[in-house]
Amino acid sequence: MITYPSERVETIIGMIREFMKKEVYPIEGEFAHKKFGELLPLLNEKRAKVKQMGLWAPQVPEEFGGAGLSFIEHAYVSEELGRSPLGHFIFGAQAPDAGNIEILIKYGSKEQKARYLRPLVAGQIRSCFSMTEPEKPGSNPTWMETTAKKDGDDYVINGQKWFTSSAEGSAFAIVMAVTNPDAEPHMRASQIIVPTDTEGFNLVRNISVMGHVGDNYASHAEVLYQSCRVPQANLLGPEGSGFVIAQERLGPGRIHHCMRWMGIAERAFELMCERAATRDVAPGRKLGTRQIIQAWIAECRAEINAARLMVIDAAQKIDKVGAYEAREEISLIKFYGAGVLSKVLDRAIQVHGALGVTDDTPLATFFRHERAAHIYDGPDEVHKVAVARRILRKYGLN
Amino acid sequence: MITYPSERVETIIGMIREFMKKEVYPIEGEFAHKKFGELLPLLNEKRAKVKQMGLWAPQVPEEFGGAGLSFIEHAYVSEELGRSPLGHFIFGAQAPDAGNIEILIKYGSKEQKARYLRPLVAGQIRSCFSMTEPEKPGSNPTWMETTAKKDGDDYVINGQKWFTSSAEGSAFAIVMAVTNPDAEPHMRASQIIVPTDTEGFNLVRNISVMGHVGDNYASHAEVLYQSCRVPQANLLGPEGSGFVIAQERLGPGRIHHCMRWMGIAERAFELMCERAATRDVAPGRKLGTRQIIQAWIAECRAEINAARLMVIDAAQKIDKVGAYEAREEISLIKFYGAGVLSKVLDRAIQVHGALGVTDDTPLATFFRHERAAHIYDGPDEVHKVAVARRILRKYGLN
Amino acid sequence: MITYPSERVETIIGMIREFMKKEVYPIEGEFAHKKFGELLPLLNEKRAKVKQMGLWAPQVPEEFGGAGLSFIEHAYVSEELGRSPLGHFIFGAQAPDAGNIEILIKYGSKEQKARYLRPLVAGQIRSCFSMTEPEKPGSNPTWMETTAKKDGDDYVINGQKWFTSSAEGSAFAIVMAVTNPDAEPHMRASQIIVPTDTEGFNLVRNISVMGHVGDNYASHAEVLYQSCRVPQANLLGPEGSGFVIAQERLGPGRIHHCMRWMGIAERAFELMCERAATRDVAPGRKLGTRQIIQAWIAECRAEINAARLMVIDAAQKIDKVGAYEAREEISLIKFYGAGVLSKVLDRAIQVHGALGVTDDTPLATFFRHERAAHIYDGPDEVHKVAVARRILRKYGLN
Amino acid sequence: MITYPSERVETIIGMIREFMKKEVYPIEGEFAHKKFGELLPLLNEKRAKVKQMGLWAPQVPEEFGGAGLSFIEHAYVSEELGRSPLGHFIFGAQAPDAGNIEILIKYGSKEQKARYLRPLVAGQIRSCFSMTEPEKPGSNPTWMETTAKKDGDDYVINGQKWFTSSAEGSAFAIVMAVTNPDAEPHMRASQIIVPTDTEGFNLVRNISVMGHVGDNYASHAEVLYQSCRVPQANLLGPEGSGFVIAQERLGPGRIHHCMRWMGIAERAFELMCERAATRDVAPGRKLGTRQIIQAWIAECRAEINAARLMVIDAAQKIDKVGAYEAREEISLIKFYGAGVLSKVLDRAIQVHGALGVTDDTPLATFFRHERAAHIYDGPDEVHKVAVARRILRKYGLN
Repeated sequence: MITYPSERVETIIGMIREFMKKEVYPIEGEFAHKKFGELLPLLNEKRAKVKQMGLWAPQVPEEFGGAGLSFIEHAYVSEELGRSPLGHFIFGAQAPDAGNIEILIKYGSKEQKARYLRPLVAGQIRSCFSMTEPEKPGSNPTWMETTAKKDGDDYVINGQKWFTSSAEGSAFAIVMAVTNPDAEPHMRASQIIVPTDTEGFNLVRNISVMGHVGDNYASHAEVLYQSCRVPQANLLGPEGSGFVIAQERLGPGRIHHCMRWMGIAERAFELMCERAATRDVAPGRKLGTRQIIQAWIAECRAEINAARLMVIDAAQKIDKVGAYEAREEISLIKFYGAGVLSKVLDRAIQVHGALGVTDDTPLATFFRHERAAHIYDGPDEVHKVAVARRILRKYGLN
Repeated sequence: MITYPSERVETIIGMIREFMKKEVYPIEGEFAHKKFGELLPLLNEKRAKVKQMGLWAPQVPEEFGGAGLSFIEHAYVSEELGRSPLGHFIFGAQAPDAGNIEILIKYGSKEQKARYLRPLVAGQIRSCFSMTEPEKPGSNPTWMETTAKKDGDDYVINGQKWFTSSAEGSAFAIVMAVTNPDAEPHMRASQIIVPTDTEGFNLVRNISVMGHVGDNYASHAEVLYQSCRVPQANLLGPEGSGFVIAQERLGPGRIHHCMRWMGIAERAFELMCERAATRDVAPGRKLGTRQIIQAWIAECRAEINAARLMVIDAAQKIDKVGAYEAREEISLIKFYGAGVLSKVLDRAIQVHGALGVTDDTPLATFFRHERAAHIYDGPDEVHKVAVARRILRKYGLN
Repeated sequence: MITYPSERVETIIGMIREFMKKEVYPIEGEFAHKKFGELLPLLNEKRAKVKQMGLWAPQVPEEFGGAGLSFIEHAYVSEELGRSPLGHFIFGAQAPDAGNIEILIKYGSKEQKARYLRPLVAGQIRSCFSMTEPEKPGSNPTWMETTAKKDGDDYVINGQKWFTSSAEGSAFAIVMAVTNPDAEPHMRASQIIVPTDTEGFNLVRNISVMGHVGDNYASHAEVLYQSCRVPQANLLGPEGSGFVIAQERLGPGRIHHCMRWMGIAERAFELMCERAATRDVAPGRKLGTRQIIQAWIAECRAEINAARLMVIDAAQKIDKVGAYEAREEISLIKFYGAGVLSKVLDRAIQVHGALGVTDDTPLATFFRHERAAHIYDGPDEVHKVAVARRILRKYGLN
Repeated sequence: MITYPSERVETIIGMIREFMKKEVYPIEGEFAHKKFGELLPLLNEKRAKVKQMGLWAPQVPEEFGGAGLSFIEHAYVSEELGRSPLGHFIFGAQAPDAGNIEILIKYGSKEQKARYLRPLVAGQIRSCFSMTEPEKPGSNPTWMETTAKKDGDDYVINGQKWFTSSAEGSAFAIVMAVTNPDAEPHMRASQIIVPTDTEGFNLVRNISVMGHVGDNYASHAEVLYQSCRVPQANLLGPEGSGFVIAQERLGPGRIHHCMRWMGIAERAFELMCERAATRDVAPGRKLGTRQIIQAWIAECRAEINAARLMVIDAAQKIDKVGAYEAREEISLIKFYGAGVLSKVLDRAIQVHGALGVTDDTPLATFFRHERAAHIYDGPDEVHKVAVARRILRKYGLN
């Protein structure tokens, strides 16, 4: 039973849904194989319309220039935006900027807010988040090689990062680096703002991902920090709090992420049903009369419902008792939701036959890009192990 | 996030949980391989205690002798009772009596209520429900061979039924039989009360199910109705409404059923975790330190949560808009819940190793008896097809 | 493409198949819920017929009283016998006697052969194998608590065993016990013959398994060895070789075991197809016209073929290079085959609907008894880990 | 147990394996995101080396310019070539040319052989196969809209095709078109050679597939035939035999296809094991010590073995009794093999973490391109239904 937390959200959802169908879906085809930079002028036109509608940066408090939705409200909005690969970008709610905005709101100094937060929310600049390292497992975020050493009033940063998404064209990066190597593991790293024009910030390459080198916002950079020097004033929050901030960034953000997946899953489900209802498999016989297809539709419906209810349940728990107390629920939706997403996409493609692997529908784009859902923000397996250990502790296993 | 609809329910759940651990779990072992009749004296002692606690027949309105819980409240109670194969029986909430009680409350005449309902609620008599036929698919309930023909003031019933569960020792059966063969399919059958001592009510055999012929309450009879004559006053509701009444009986009842499954799944999960946390696989190494086991625990946790949230969501929808409007949700939990149940049981057994197939835990009993969850009340596949067709209709496929 | 290794085998298979249909299938129903002891006279009649056919103890060399089939030949025979839960017993090829016969042939002294092997092959006595302990994981066979200490000319055995299958009515047990506690782990235990009438051999109980305490051959005993004294002449092979002998017993035996599973799977597949082809789901519409059922049939066919080819491939490898070199293949079929078996049984039951959980077909018996296929002779997970470690060693991981 | 049908094949496999590692693997990275046309000069150098090695066009009889391997021998070669997305192309064994070569050898007239076959085998020209239509399901190949009408000495072809792979740069297409609309369904279509420079052969677009419009050999065209006129001498085989020829092309070809998948699966398996054996997940702990990863490796090993044995079994059956008699086995490997392939690729990616979605390994390319394995040459579901119907016919269901 899909219900919304308030009438206000219901109205907003209605507006977004209409906008998506009219303005966003028609341009998706180009996104699949064109350069992002080429699309940008068109996307900026769409962004202007969103601003006019008053829905720009829906998750950002009004005082910082957003639409001021609550955590729970934005969950539902994120679901709607997720229905298109372009949704979040067009509404100013895209990763990694959204996460960086959260950090800057919570930990940014007055100067940092003025210089980085304002234009970022406004969509005048973009940013990136530089945490993952190629030689260290993302699943173990306290194990990191990049260092930031104090030197006079500066930090001097050295290290190699990759999957610094959207670095190309970004104004600044938020970099995770070890500042306190002798502290206990969770207190070693800090988050530091590094303008991308700083000497020693070297964008080595955009990594080719699933067949695309990508460009601009739609890219994943390998970045080499070589004696990259920034003022200590660029530190975010207290020194050594990098891991804690990262957790805070990830926790509730995962809800919006998972709701984005739900949006993708719903879109795929819709496409699958439309195809099944209209495609002839024999003269006068629609594909949807076939029991195998019917079974898939029912199973997908059940699993999307299941995942969605779990995400909303986790969101409510975060809202009530905080992300820390809800970390079991967050981990559960992370892997369960990714599993449902992959399964629904796979079946939606199969129902489309040859059309399913083309870019005439957004399914192939989703299929390529969302494979990573099982990997980023902690691979499925890491979440499973973490959940199980926590549960087994209640049974006396340490 | 497990929350209860009211403090009252929470208190009751606490009471039940304690009772189950102290009074019910210890006698489960005997249930697995003993005759039910032999256990009955012991079970009746337990039933007496439940009555003293004021929790007898929790789902039955107080005016008819029960504890008067609401539909939603009983869902949570059913979950708790489901944790043991003996729970529902000991609390006077067992199928098929619970369903028959519902029918009698809603459709029973004053006389029927006095004669059948009162002693049934009180646990003085038992009853059975005689619908399924061996030669006709249960999935197509309008296709039935048993007939009830009017003759004077009586109905004369002829036909063969099976899986008339708990017929042995029952005081009466509610029989589905075709009374109006020329009506449209859904209006052909009626429900009629048949005392089991009526001539022509022939209990042919208790069917051997999963290795047990069974006896008494724990049995599934094949019944041959041979010119079995009962007064027309034994008709329940209007003639031809048998199918409608059956649907009403099944719809909300499925919620309690599915919550019972959740109770089983939670019990199995608990046993699995206890075993993992305490069993040595090597000197000083517990089974629960193994990643494969950890992955199972996390996956089971996710899936039980998912199924449980779906059942509660369906219950709330029934409560708000009725079972008819919620039939998609009901079908979804029917097959999704059965799937989760089977998977959790299977893994719980595997974690127990050889112990898992013994009757030293209730897992093997659950494994044998709950395989039928995929079959009774409509096989999974029938629900899947029904859901998909309903969905595809919205996309224009008829 | 099912082919047989020789015309001789093809002829034997034909004979067995006919015998099974005519003599064995009709009595299966009784096996499900009757005491084995009650069935025994009937089974002995069948055994007599098998002896007349010259197919008794097919896997045992002619010099010891069997039909003398080769290792590979018996694989195919085992498949055929596996089609009924009674097949191996009726043909004198049942576990655990078959394994004990192998040990006695290979390691038995002249006296042991005369006293135990001859009557065992002849079916005059039965035996059991006492290895598994309740408090120690079967997956770690070198970790064992039962001891056999030398005292004069005797061993004095103390310890607790369970799943000593078929102990009730057995003339002797082969017991695994630690004789050399200070040797390296794989050289600590020995196998010793213990007549079951020896003082200190205490059959504590037949464990209730999947709802049945069982009896006679069809039972799984818990045995307490209390100062159980047997002559040292009862030792099998050299002292400390218990583990090696157990491996030898299990390795090639697993092939026959897995082929038995293939027989079960084929039987279930056959029943599933027969049901699908003949059961009406609507007037004039057979169940087998439903695509969901069709998909299951095709998937089961593929997976049975896959598993069967793997078993035969493993058998050929054993035949060529020995069980030790083929241990990867053996582990693979152990868990892959068990998985296929469970899946086919589950689907065959589902296709039968309510009939599937009754004992009117052998499916429910298979479903209950073969759940253990994932557990005995090493749980699936232990085999998976063993295979992976061996593979990863080739990639440099130790 | 991997064995080869002859020493000759074993030697060839060894040569190919070395060549692949030295010459092919190193250039794969560029294939993922570069234009094929840009790579072509480099690929032609590699092709020249293959010709020098005497392994060019391994599957083509020597009299037509190939290496003359038998059907079974080429199955093993195809497996090796499949280990790289570039393998078949570099060895002159790539689809759709390989299939077209088969047709031309079997059905081509002397003139057709001279003009089309010779330069095609030599790699001087390329070709395409124009069968699939966007508005008609590929699963029902007798239902087709493209027509070829006789007009004087010519055929005039009209219709729309898509997934005419590699059309860009091809010298000719083999087109399926209805020539005999009133014949029974399987006799309506014919195969006709259409040089791509014929007027009315309109390459509308290269379809964007999984994010790439593609080019040259690596493309999938939509082609509009508009009054496209070719001499009747371009007919292949007898008029109306198009479907029969297509079946002949597909049947045995599927073996080589499935063995190609096995090569991909083996490559992915190898990469997965290498990664597991070398990647640190914590200081001093390799990923491969984790049980979840170990379970995957064992399961993948089992399933690849299973699929491979099934493919070889099917190949042997084709070799003995022909493709028609082996169509059940062919259908089984089609869907079972595709399933194994997808699963292995998915897990190999997961083991690689973020690296898995990059083009730094060939896994992402395989993941994108081989999703279509479930679709082309008949979707999985069509094969399942076909197999099941054939099986159920033996049980009397028509």
